[in-house]
Amino acid sequence: MITKSSTKDLALSSNERLFLKGNSIFKPKKYNNLKPKGLKIYTFHAGFKKKLKDLLIIIFDKTVNSKIVYSKTSMPSAPIIWDLKNNKGTVKALIVNSGNANAHTGKKGIDTIDKYTNYLSNFIGCKKNEILVSSTGVIGELFDPSLIINQIPKIKSLKPNYLLDAAKAIMTTDTYPKISVKKVVINKKIFKIYGIAKGSGMIKPNMGTMLSYIFLEPKISKTILNKLLMNNLESTFNSISIDSDTSTSDTLALFSLNKIDINFKNKKNFQKLNNSLYELMYDLSLKVVKDGEGISKLIKVNILMSKSIKQAKNIAFSIINSPLVKTALSGQDANWGRVIAAIGKSEEKINQNKIKILFGKYLVCEKGARYPDIKISKINDYMKNKIIEITVILQNGNVNHTFFGNDLTYEYIRINADYRS
Amino acid sequence: MITKSSTKDLALSSNERLFLKGNSIFKPKKYNNLKPKGLKIYTFHAGFKKKLKDLLIIIFDKTVNSKIVYSKTSMPSAPIIWDLKNNKGTVKALIVNSGNANAHTGKKGIDTIDKYTNYLSNFIGCKKNEILVSSTGVIGELFDPSLIINQIPKIKSLKPNYLLDAAKAIMTTDTYPKISVKKVVINKKIFKIYGIAKGSGMIKPNMGTMLSYIFLEPKISKTILNKLLMNNLESTFNSISIDSDTSTSDTLALFSLNKIDINFKNKKNFQKLNNSLYELMYDLSLKVVKDGEGISKLIKVNILMSKSIKQAKNIAFSIINSPLVKTALSGQDANWGRVIAAIGKSEEKINQNKIKILFGKYLVCEKGARYPDIKISKINDYMKNKIIEITVILQNGNVNHTFFGNDLTYEYIRINADYRS
Repeated sequence: MITKSSTKDLALSSNERLFLKGNSIFKPKKYNNLKPKGLKIYTFHAGFKKKLKDLLIIIFDKTVNSKIVYSKTSMPSAPIIWDLKNNKGTVKALIVNSGNANAHTGKKGIDTIDKYTNYLSNFIGCKKNEILVSSTGVIGELFDPSLIINQIPKIKSLKPNYLLDAAKAIMTTDTYPKISVKKVVINKKIFKIYGIAKGSGMIKPNMGTMLSYIFLEPKISKTILNKLLMNNLESTFNSISIDSDTSTSDTLALFSLNKIDINFKNKKNFQKLNNSLYELMYDLSLKVVKDGEGISKLIKVNILMSKSIKQAKNIAFSIINSPLVKTALSGQDANWGRVIAAIGKSEEKINQNKIKILFGKYLVCEKGARYPDIKISKINDYMKNKIIEITVILQNGNVNHTFFGNDLTYEYIRINADYRS
Repeated sequence: MITKSSTKDLALSSNERLFLKGNSIFKPKKYNNLKPKGLKIYTFHAGFKKKLKDLLIIIFDKTVNSKIVYSKTSMPSAPIIWDLKNNKGTVKALIVNSGNANAHTGKKGIDTIDKYTNYLSNFIGCKKNEILVSSTGVIGELFDPSLIINQIPKIKSLKPNYLLDAAKAIMTTDTYPKISVKKVVINKKIFKIYGIAKGSGMIKPNMGTMLSYIFLEPKISKTILNKLLMNNLESTFNSISIDSDTSTSDTLALFSLNKIDINFKNKKNFQKLNNSLYELMYDLSLKVVKDGEGISKLIKVNILMSKSIKQAKNIAFSIINSPLVKTALSGQDANWGRVIAAIGKSEEKINQNKIKILFGKYLVCEKGARYPDIKISKINDYMKNKIIEITVILQNGNVNHTFFGNDLTYEYIRINADYRS
């Protein structure tokens, strides 16, 4: 379900065309920002990174309902293991550090979390299982809990930060903070939903993404939070891939802030909130893929007339994650043969004589062969755009779905061959 | 089953350390070569490439038994469709062109093959269904059958070429020809088996590889040829991946040349031939991956104590095809955290506390965390080698299997962003 307002940001604004050295070409010029009500944001330089802020602590005024999904990896990080064991969806505080993932750190990694959550729960007077934790950064390195513990007492004297500061404090290889805000009106009641996300590499979310936190002002039950999250996860965060590498730390959390009373058992009310949340999650996930490591082009893949969402996803990711497709696009080459090969390798049962493929609005093949009137020079011009849309019409069913990825560039290799050095 | 003689070529010879500009660092200094008996090799410049030989025609003295496997892609090329429809495993001639894959070319692509096979069958006096065809190169472009037909009459006046010429005529982005010869002795009877292969990009074979032809001198029934091929396919060509992209044209063919009579229903005789064929297929597949586009390091992944071959393969390819693992290796970074993440994303049910990972002979993690006595500086030295061996001990079963891939470099992107321009 791609709504009109959600596709708006696919049209490149002039400022997005600006290539900023070392930054994503999609880096926004302006950011939404606000100081949300119902929670207080504190950010710190704890020492995980050399200079930048690297610790976020959010304290809710009262405990809130939440629903969280985590990476489906078989190698979950210590924070995921800890959250799953302790938290039951009632949250008073959130602690996120960036620069160290606390992943594959064994029992000691869990002990580290026990220590800093014990400290915070005593400090603010809540139960330990009302705290949520996340970590992102290097895998396999233990860290000293005092890095976090030493910052906590400062909360007393600090003025709460803005949402944008929260988005900045959780960045790793990100070149810009990701933030999204939507205003919703239901029965003349006005409220906001807003979220932050981080992620630039090791992004092929599978049931959550590399850290995203979304706050909804209304009072929402855990059952409805769950429904909202599951309704929108597949078509947003689970439909993007930067480098096909699912992380050990993917976490997506929804929080209800209890600021306003609305009956969401009413279908129409639920639908309105659901649509706004979809737009917000779509916007945030697109901001993540637009900051894909080394991105020079955003790839939008529409799979039309598929047999199932599973088939659409399998074929789309086969295209989006193909190094040959990705390099062709960075080379501005409309090499649709590589798209054909990528569809083929997915092993989905597809009749190649029925497939149509379009680059932008230009048909490149149909009836099992190149389209006889293919507009080569127009397509070559089209390939110079920063957003390339590939549409695959399978004629194999009724399911349509859109996926996002990016191209593969020298810059991706520079970033990742040198990550730890 | 990795035999002693087959692992020999994993020790880098001094000449392999020589970096040749524009060539794989693994380019051999010397080539086996011979003029096989029982078949005649003709190579031509037909015009698919600008200057180089691009057409191979092999004519067997008499029809031979063969067994062939093709790509499991759902987008098979016209030659694969044509072969599967026509050939029944009895072969008089083989036609291979390079520079155009005749893939996704529809009915016209099939007509093209009909025309040049008709011409050859009339010219040499055989049935059309005794001819095998393959094509490799760009996908989606039709070619004129006269390119091939015009060369065929020259056969009368040409002196047959060497096996090395055949290996050269089927190259595309390959930087060196791939050829392998084994001498076999069974019951004091001496014979040879030999093969050629090509492939450098779009290599993640799935039931065959981007063109390989193997010739066995003994008389072998189709049943036994089939058994030989199936015995050795998984552990050789189906265990390599250069870029995770399975081709539309993968073809692996075994031919029996009827030069010598040996009873292969005898278990011991069969086993001897089977082992030699394994070594040959292992050698050829390794030569393919060592010529991987832009390769700066060969990656050997050993999966030990896996539950099944399927699990081992899934985990190994998750590691070998991970852009983050590949770039870490090209950056000489022993970033084992990315190996952990890659194992995790495979979704195989693995207990992370049981896994041990070694880089070379150096343990990097065990019991769910970094190995306390990890030898960082020795591992950093090890990472400078041209062959990096990653061993993953799953402690989840009894299946061991070895896989090969290569790293991801600027050079890969240069080659593939500019392929058609």
